[in-house]
Amino acid sequence: MVELLKCRSLAKKLLAFCLFLCFASFAFQSVEAKVRYHKWEVKYEYKSPDCYKRLVITINGRSPGPTINAQQGDTVIVELKNSLLTENVAIHWHGIRQHGTPWSDGTEGVTQCPIVPGDTFVYKFVVDRPGTYLYHAHYGMQRESGLYGLIRVSLPDGESEPFSYDYDRSVILTDWYHKSTYEQATGLASIPFVWVGEPQSILIQGRGKFNCSTPGIETGLCNATNPECTPFSLTVVPGKTYRLRIGSLTALSALSFEIEGHNMTVVEADGHNVEPFVVQNLFIYSGETYSVLVKADQDSSRNYWASAHVVSRNSTTPNGLGIINYYPNHRLRSPPTIPPIGPRWNYVAPRIAQSQAIKALKGYIHTPPERPDRVIVMLNTQNRIDGHVRWSVNNVSFNLPHTPYLIALKQNLLHTFEQTPPPEGYDATNYDIYGVAKNVNATISNSIYHLKFNSTVDLILQNANTMNVNNSETHPWHLHGHDFWVLGYGTGKFNISIDSEKYNLVNPIMKNTVPIHPYGWTALRFRANNPGVWLFHCHIESHFFMGMGVVFEEGVEKVNRLPTSIMGCGETKRFLKP
Amino acid sequence: MVELLKCRSLAKKLLAFCLFLCFASFAFQSVEAKVRYHKWEVKYEYKSPDCYKRLVITINGRSPGPTINAQQGDTVIVELKNSLLTENVAIHWHGIRQHGTPWSDGTEGVTQCPIVPGDTFVYKFVVDRPGTYLYHAHYGMQRESGLYGLIRVSLPDGESEPFSYDYDRSVILTDWYHKSTYEQATGLASIPFVWVGEPQSILIQGRGKFNCSTPGIETGLCNATNPECTPFSLTVVPGKTYRLRIGSLTALSALSFEIEGHNMTVVEADGHNVEPFVVQNLFIYSGETYSVLVKADQDSSRNYWASAHVVSRNSTTPNGLGIINYYPNHRLRSPPTIPPIGPRWNYVAPRIAQSQAIKALKGYIHTPPERPDRVIVMLNTQNRIDGHVRWSVNNVSFNLPHTPYLIALKQNLLHTFEQTPPPEGYDATNYDIYGVAKNVNATISNSIYHLKFNSTVDLILQNANTMNVNNSETHPWHLHGHDFWVLGYGTGKFNISIDSEKYNLVNPIMKNTVPIHPYGWTALRFRANNPGVWLFHCHIESHFFMGMGVVFEEGVEKVNRLPTSIMGCGETKRFLKP
Repeated sequence: MVELLKCRSLAKKLLAFCLFLCFASFAFQSVEAKVRYHKWEVKYEYKSPDCYKRLVITINGRSPGPTINAQQGDTVIVELKNSLLTENVAIHWHGIRQHGTPWSDGTEGVTQCPIVPGDTFVYKFVVDRPGTYLYHAHYGMQRESGLYGLIRVSLPDGESEPFSYDYDRSVILTDWYHKSTYEQATGLASIPFVWVGEPQSILIQGRGKFNCSTPGIETGLCNATNPECTPFSLTVVPGKTYRLRIGSLTALSALSFEIEGHNMTVVEADGHNVEPFVVQNLFIYSGETYSVLVKADQDSSRNYWASAHVVSRNSTTPNGLGIINYYPNHRLRSPPTIPPIGPRWNYVAPRIAQSQAIKALKGYIHTPPERPDRVIVMLNTQNRIDGHVRWSVNNVSFNLPHTPYLIALKQNLLHTFEQTPPPEGYDATNYDIYGVAKNVNATISNSIYHLKFNSTVDLILQNANTMNVNNSETHPWHLHGHDFWVLGYGTGKFNISIDSEKYNLVNPIMKNTVPIHPYGWTALRFRANNPGVWLFHCHIESHFFMGMGVVFEEGVEKVNRLPTSIMGCGETKRFLKP
Repeated sequence: MVELLKCRSLAKKLLAFCLFLCFASFAFQSVEAKVRYHKWEVKYEYKSPDCYKRLVITINGRSPGPTINAQQGDTVIVELKNSLLTENVAIHWHGIRQHGTPWSDGTEGVTQCPIVPGDTFVYKFVVDRPGTYLYHAHYGMQRESGLYGLIRVSLPDGESEPFSYDYDRSVILTDWYHKSTYEQATGLASIPFVWVGEPQSILIQGRGKFNCSTPGIETGLCNATNPECTPFSLTVVPGKTYRLRIGSLTALSALSFEIEGHNMTVVEADGHNVEPFVVQNLFIYSGETYSVLVKADQDSSRNYWASAHVVSRNSTTPNGLGIINYYPNHRLRSPPTIPPIGPRWNYVAPRIAQSQAIKALKGYIHTPPERPDRVIVMLNTQNRIDGHVRWSVNNVSFNLPHTPYLIALKQNLLHTFEQTPPPEGYDATNYDIYGVAKNVNATISNSIYHLKFNSTVDLILQNANTMNVNNSETHPWHLHGHDFWVLGYGTGKFNISIDSEKYNLVNPIMKNTVPIHPYGWTALRFRANNPGVWLFHCHIESHFFMGMGVVFEEGVEKVNRLPTSIMGCGETKRFLKP
């Protein structure tokens, strides 16, 4: 008995010491540590995120990958080992502007050669703003094989957010296909064109539920009781307020996210503080992040549904469902209600209304330059070029060169891509944006826009009809290396003399990803003040694959000596001097 | 009417002129042309070679790829464009010794970095011997995705083969999986191990027939009436003799090939003339080629089956069937007989007998050196290492380094692989080849054998029991960069003092691929006279993936300056000096 007591006393002391050590190391880290080092191994593994078994690209065995937590001003280092068998990789740090490190943007073909199997590549960059960001593969259509995750950057010690909450939680929303990206891409590049179709599932934080009784699927692949596809569950303490960071990395789908019976107050968008507004459902497009505040103020005797619903496409994909778990109910106890259906897929007005509601928070406004030095109007169309279905900007469909632009431009390999710049606009007078896209003179090109350093550039994204009658899609456009001011949204054909007068120059939000709505336009402004080469593209994986993107160069002469680790492909082989 | 006649006359003259031009250019080519130039594009396409639709790696839209036809002494140039989306590639020219061009052997990790998507790589080599050779992907497990074909090298003008025939035809035999190589490889590398299983089909010249009524398959993928899976049919004229060049590039299976009711006279093996012998069925192992003479001397009122049957494994794979079509029957008319069943899978004696029957043809004998300078005994075992199932040679399981050996050795990057050489043998006295493999001290290594230039090396391949009771498999071993003399085959444990006395030093055949039979040994001799770095490995795709191979270096100091096109990965990046 005495022995036992002694033992207990020793154990207590040991525990106290351990706690002290933990706390000490934590305190030390949060004050001093400025380098966040991650060692990642990327490989294929069999996973069943929606109960259906397929190959998934994992990071250290996980998909979604590990969350990168850092503090403003920290340096993030990711040492990435490619353990895919025959397949290369590159990872983009979505929303991180890469000031001074344009070679770490992770955009294959733009800022680096792909990382070949067996090689280790080191990404190193500073996270210079607090907020919620993403990372994901930026090579081929790999993103939708599961290689993605979240970046959370906190404020410096002593500073606090302009909103308050008790707990900080996050979810990434994705859509999920059962076919491999090779299968999808082969169809997209085929004549005749084979569309990938609608995704099989919506995943909330990597978890969904496909109906294993679906007829015609291969036997043995779907297992409804696989623990990998137990639903996402967020436990909340009654009365507490949660900051929920929501990111979307869907391959295709625009989503409406809601928590049954709860309001959400939007407070952050793409790393910028938002003048708060309340929504019942949050529309979120691929590449966007939001923080919403949710108070656990409902009946605590039950759980509630979290639901992600496809909008903007007449989709067959069922809603993704998770559980908001009121403590102390069981975390997987099914809510007693029918899950929310979500808004009508083709009801555009509330989506435009939400886009327009997002303004910069007072006290956190970055005032944009009053007028632009240059305006580029970008007509978004679907075209058929040489028998292939493509997406184009001003009738030019983008393809990547074999030598990454950043290297080509810095090392004077200008023959590696077309030098005639792409068009500044389209024939707005005569083009009917409501008619089926005429496919006159559409071409495929890898030419780029050169921007005067430090100049102010307006981008007018103009939507139009696709190749199908009465159809215009929603496209989330993402700009690398910058945030832009969102000056305005409108419906119909943009008219520069009228519409530019209505720009919000008072408190426009800054973002890195923004939708254009069907038959609508979106006006953006940014300062070309980040030396490098930057992709601007539709964040729908298949649309970018089919040419929906452009590239900007600015101040590339100010970029420091490039690391050779980004080289090895295309014409960079001429630098091999053994 | 007059106009019409004039027109006809003009057309006739034009045709005659065209024919003259064609003939003239053909005649010119066959006498003078010494460069055989091929431009290939490699990409994924949906194909249904056995009626089941899956992604196939094609060359210029075809699988099997185009046959390379050349004449002894010609230079073959293949300009290979990688149009796979995210996947690299490398192609090995199987049986071509690459004298003076070791960097063109196409062995990823040994002689080159992989070719990344978008890049074009130029293979250039001389075909210095007549005969039948192969080419195929040598990266990951890509070969079994359909990237393979045949090389036929004819004699110089005025020379003739020591056997006569009327027509020259060829077929490649393969086995075929419905799962992608990623899926297979992920299983092989997993803990617990997931075996790929037996192939779904045997393909004759890229054509097979899977039973679309098989339960449990995904609907919509199998179509029994797809023209892509009409059977291979070889039309023969009664009374004529056919040289049939047969190559095997199976992923897994050893095969017995037969033509119902017809004898086959074996006249060539791996590019060497054979003292002719007659077989009813030809055993052929992955990586081997044979020429057989077949006389169309049977009942010409009907067609006959050609059948390829799995031996050496208790396989569930049905026989591959083709049609020997007696002109003028319809080429797809079904023979009136039940297809041949083929020999019992576990009847080893006739396979050993055939191996032993293959001798060099009189007048074409290359006499081997009388004795070796070095003997390396290679115990083949299956092992479990760190939880993974692996194949090993002398308890060392091979893995490829990230910097190809050829570059590492020429450019003094010796830190890129282990420098301790692998063992010269095993503890033959105490090891029980009939017992389940002990897994004592098995390791994974990328170390290599250094051979004295011009020395004579004997390789004794010693088979043993696998990790399963009473099981020993058949392994076809293939040597790059050389032909070897096949000195003998035996059963049981090799005894150097007794067995080496029985070596055939009189008329041994030279080959580049040779089987070891269950619980047997095979003795080979070769001259290390080809400066370079050469892989020697089991040609079963999954076995090599699991470590069944070794590498030889010889006279690497005599290798000329390496082309930089083979570089770009691993430590070769340090040569990037922009």
